[in-house]
Amino acid sequence: MEQMTIQTAVEQAAQTLERLREEAPSVHCLTNTVAQAFTANCCLALGLRPSMTDTANEVAYFVRDARALLINLGTLAPERRETIGIAVDLMRDEQRPWVLDPVFVDVSEPRAAFARELTRLQPAIIRGNANEITALAPTGDDPVAALAVEAMTTVMCTGAVDRIVAGRTQIEVLNGTPLLAQVTATGCAGAAITAAFAAIEPDMAIASLSSALVMGIAGEMAAREASGPGSFAMHLVDRLSTIRPEDLTNFARARR
Amino acid sequence: MEQMTIQTAVEQAAQTLERLREEAPSVHCLTNTVAQAFTANCCLALGLRPSMTDTANEVAYFVRDARALLINLGTLAPERRETIGIAVDLMRDEQRPWVLDPVFVDVSEPRAAFARELTRLQPAIIRGNANEITALAPTGDDPVAALAVEAMTTVMCTGAVDRIVAGRTQIEVLNGTPLLAQVTATGCAGAAITAAFAAIEPDMAIASLSSALVMGIAGEMAAREASGPGSFAMHLVDRLSTIRPEDLTNFARARR
Amino acid sequence: MEQMTIQTAVEQAAQTLERLREEAPSVHCLTNTVAQAFTANCCLALGLRPSMTDTANEVAYFVRDARALLINLGTLAPERRETIGIAVDLMRDEQRPWVLDPVFVDVSEPRAAFARELTRLQPAIIRGNANEITALAPTGDDPVAALAVEAMTTVMCTGAVDRIVAGRTQIEVLNGTPLLAQVTATGCAGAAITAAFAAIEPDMAIASLSSALVMGIAGEMAAREASGPGSFAMHLVDRLSTIRPEDLTNFARARR
Repeated sequence: MEQMTIQTAVEQAAQTLERLREEAPSVHCLTNTVAQAFTANCCLALGLRPSMTDTANEVAYFVRDARALLINLGTLAPERRETIGIAVDLMRDEQRPWVLDPVFVDVSEPRAAFARELTRLQPAIIRGNANEITALAPTGDDPVAALAVEAMTTVMCTGAVDRIVAGRTQIEVLNGTPLLAQVTATGCAGAAITAAFAAIEPDMAIASLSSALVMGIAGEMAAREASGPGSFAMHLVDRLSTIRPEDLTNFARARR
Repeated sequence: MEQMTIQTAVEQAAQTLERLREEAPSVHCLTNTVAQAFTANCCLALGLRPSMTDTANEVAYFVRDARALLINLGTLAPERRETIGIAVDLMRDEQRPWVLDPVFVDVSEPRAAFARELTRLQPAIIRGNANEITALAPTGDDPVAALAVEAMTTVMCTGAVDRIVAGRTQIEVLNGTPLLAQVTATGCAGAAITAAFAAIEPDMAIASLSSALVMGIAGEMAAREASGPGSFAMHLVDRLSTIRPEDLTNFARARR
Repeated sequence: MEQMTIQTAVEQAAQTLERLREEAPSVHCLTNTVAQAFTANCCLALGLRPSMTDTANEVAYFVRDARALLINLGTLAPERRETIGIAVDLMRDEQRPWVLDPVFVDVSEPRAAFARELTRLQPAIIRGNANEITALAPTGDDPVAALAVEAMTTVMCTGAVDRIVAGRTQIEVLNGTPLLAQVTATGCAGAAITAAFAAIEPDMAIASLSSALVMGIAGEMAAREASGPGSFAMHLVDRLSTIRPEDLTNFARARR
């Protein structure tokens, strides 16, 4: 999308949401135990077909049927490392996309070392917050761009502003609400949604943009109905089930 | 209940709900990590006493106090297989009922092999969706009936129509809402409720019918209040806490 | 707080809530898989910074940054025992508080034996229900007081009335609602909140009182809005995000 205006990119992201609902892709999520249920519910609300089995002896059967894979490193049990290796290899063999969410690699050095190995295995998208991306990036002024270059992939850095870097393409998405940070696993669930978009849109910048807009705009809608983070989480799931392509084109706040 | 009319069966199911609330049975749930919290909350809402410890060295202490046991094969960690073996043996020794929910045996061959072993250990009820039941059944025109014969047990096949087969008895329950499939773990929680009914009603067809009606009718009530799957999940728990025997007799849509 | 009136104690508890919101302490939670998500959401609603990694090889990195630690013994995987040992040792080295929530030690003898070892490692607060405290206490008329003496610590016994014993200090808190017992993990989440208060208030009787008042009064507010345990859980999280120091002074029902 290097030559595209932001309006065109948003329109393409909106069409991608339409295809997502039609195709209802299966997404296998190797994710932390805190996030599993909320991630499954966000995926189901959007019409995706999530699965979550994280054992080494069974993961191949689930990945076989998955159009996309999420690798989230939260509560990383040692056995799950083996499972992740098997799952990533299978997706690479089939040339299907996988997304890396390097949760808390800024806190845990062993986890960061494992995440660095994974960044060399061509994730379609690396998605994390600024601290996490910085922990994985080579030194430099702009960790997001530096990691995108080094890992030769798309990097999505989430926060008050979501920033997407893919080659020379840069997009910033301003949609969202502070309530998203007051509910556990909204980022983890968002990364599963990013993986699903990566399954149906070959341009990873557009796939990332779609997922940022969906979570940001559904979040804004939910925030208007919420009385706190508890009701916000509930309304967010409801809005993910109803958000339409035209909501993306009407309410996107994005820039190149 | 071979000779019973469907009206009589529904009335008996309603009385079983009344006894369930009075007796508040303990149910030990060996279930997947995605479903644990929602299963516990659905059980608590109905007045049951759930427990969830899934380690081999402690499970006997929890099963000792349990009137019913749920074996759900989702996210099946290798250690949990040992735990399941211990728990099932204890329940059989005490002639207390256990329910098998063979999650995703249609996807994972090793899991299906393990589930087939379990079907030979006299589960009181096998409860799964059509794909799962078919994966376990011997070949034949009617997998539900074939599995019921082979495992010499009651089989409950869930879906838009829930079908219960126990010997020559067949019941179909039409209650429910598509929203039940849009929230993770409603089936898993439903199977825990089925196990609880099996603890207090010796006729497994009636126990299965009770649980199908409770989840289906509470689901219908919740759907009328819901704005999407997020609020539906919340209202479902609320309605499980208030559903009464007369709701079953008034709103049951069931047939032989 | 031995010489303090209950009014003064409540005022101090209210000021502690104010400091809690200002300081936003990090709390590492080694807790059961059923309770993880709800615990994280209750902590986030109060403005805390929770983390949950429970693997032996990574826990030190998370505990390093934690101002308080929760040890909850639910669904106690054998590996988590090693993790708990590492985490508790680190907190003791740094003289930072940790709270023990001995879930279901009244049911499981191996778990009770492990919990007894932990009580000798100077938890800042032991928090459990009457059955759990009794299972850990030496024989005697008053298990709560007996355990407080034996473990030389503060004991918080939760129930319809929460009772706090620290040396000669005794406090009873009458706030709360039966709905708290109808939602899974409210006690587990409450213990994480107790740990957070222990991080910012050196008097463990006041820290315990603060957490009992916060959960009890937020629970009462949530109960007034709820239609059952599902909506109660949602409103409870909302109310934890809005509860103010003056709510504690206005609505506390406590006595010496």
